[in-house]
Amino acid sequence: MPTLVLLRHGQSQWNLENRFTGWVDVDLTAEGEAQARRGGELIKEQGIEIDRAFTSVLTRAIRTCNLALDAAGQTYVPVTKDWHLNERHYGGLTGLDKAETAAKHGEDQVRVWRRSYDVPPPPLDAGGEYDFKADRRYAGAELPDTESLKTTLDRVLPFWDGAITPALTSGDTVLVAAHGNSIRAILKLLFNLSEEAILDVEVPTSNPLVIELDAGLKPVSARYLDASRANPVPVLVG
Amino acid sequence: MPTLVLLRHGQSQWNLENRFTGWVDVDLTAEGEAQARRGGELIKEQGIEIDRAFTSVLTRAIRTCNLALDAAGQTYVPVTKDWHLNERHYGGLTGLDKAETAAKHGEDQVRVWRRSYDVPPPPLDAGGEYDFKADRRYAGAELPDTESLKTTLDRVLPFWDGAITPALTSGDTVLVAAHGNSIRAILKLLFNLSEEAILDVEVPTSNPLVIELDAGLKPVSARYLDASRANPVPVLVG
Repeated sequence: MPTLVLLRHGQSQWNLENRFTGWVDVDLTAEGEAQARRGGELIKEQGIEIDRAFTSVLTRAIRTCNLALDAAGQTYVPVTKDWHLNERHYGGLTGLDKAETAAKHGEDQVRVWRRSYDVPPPPLDAGGEYDFKADRRYAGAELPDTESLKTTLDRVLPFWDGAITPALTSGDTVLVAAHGNSIRAILKLLFNLSEEAILDVEVPTSNPLVIELDAGLKPVSARYLDASRANPVPVLVG
Repeated sequence: MPTLVLLRHGQSQWNLENRFTGWVDVDLTAEGEAQARRGGELIKEQGIEIDRAFTSVLTRAIRTCNLALDAAGQTYVPVTKDWHLNERHYGGLTGLDKAETAAKHGEDQVRVWRRSYDVPPPPLDAGGEYDFKADRRYAGAELPDTESLKTTLDRVLPFWDGAITPALTSGDTVLVAAHGNSIRAILKLLFNLSEEAILDVEVPTSNPLVIELDAGLKPVSARYLDASRANPVPVLVG
């Protein structure tokens, strides 16, 4: 039975500081590392055997993936790193904290960006402090300079279709260690959620969400491994 | 210019206990982890940018690879894990310490196994404590049940030809994080060393060996990044 395990990375330094991180390559805190290991221990305790793992090219997700596999005793599992699983690109908001964003753009505008499905923030300044296009990990890629949740989903989709669903279709148990919004994109696809519904889905960090699928990759069941801190699973929302 | 960086994993628990490890999946000690990070720091200090990494399916090598890439600030580099880069399979010696081996087989025989190029130890007991064939990471593979240095080289070769040399030929800087004997196999191939010469090559642990190659993948230069604890480089031996 194809099984998808979604794991959202834990605390990073900028989560602590409440700054828009997006594609900035901020590392996990020591707490975030411990959360990733705990996610892997839950996978081990449940006897789940991962066949393939996918993650972004951002350190906090890759290290979450590696630490979880280590803790699960499955370090040897093949891991594919791809920027299509990156966090949503926050454009010109990148690096700003809550107070700076409100001062620069006004509370109302910030609410629109946070609560809309398809309104992106202004683009990132080219050549500014955060110039991802100069980063060799993106060499040759057509990069966005800002993203809404919709355009995040649009770029997750080809990777989902081209890399992840073939593994699932072959019956694999697949781990995706990624970010709040790239995981949302996958959930919207998988559960066919509306644009409104997906905005309300908040996957908790470092709590593996195990989704069993039928042969047509329709979800059959969904559960968090740490039931004590499980938000509603999307199947109940959608 | 194609560049190969060879990194031998650092201290594992069984290195400490002086036991034949081979394919047993013993983890790094805390000291071994620190050594791997130090290897990555040396890569960073020298400004070396890794394009692709290859490692075995054994935890001590994979974690060395991951920790070194983390310390180099290059966590995002693609890593391929393949059993063809595993340590030499020690067959029936697996798990024995020095005293046990001498008691069971005699000092003279042990010296033959240690100092010969093509004499393998007796095969591993099928169905015994160390049954690698039942391990899902080797599913579908034709596995040896013992190896000499020669047969180790024989199984490294197709992976070298099929996976590593194409990356080098495309001009990549390639990291191989592996084991004493799989690294020996690569050095013998690369420097065309004799069977006698390769037995004398001892690559130090966690000291990146950087080999620059010409377009035909002939070595042009070789140096250890930590020159203070560098054994003679193979180009001088061969």
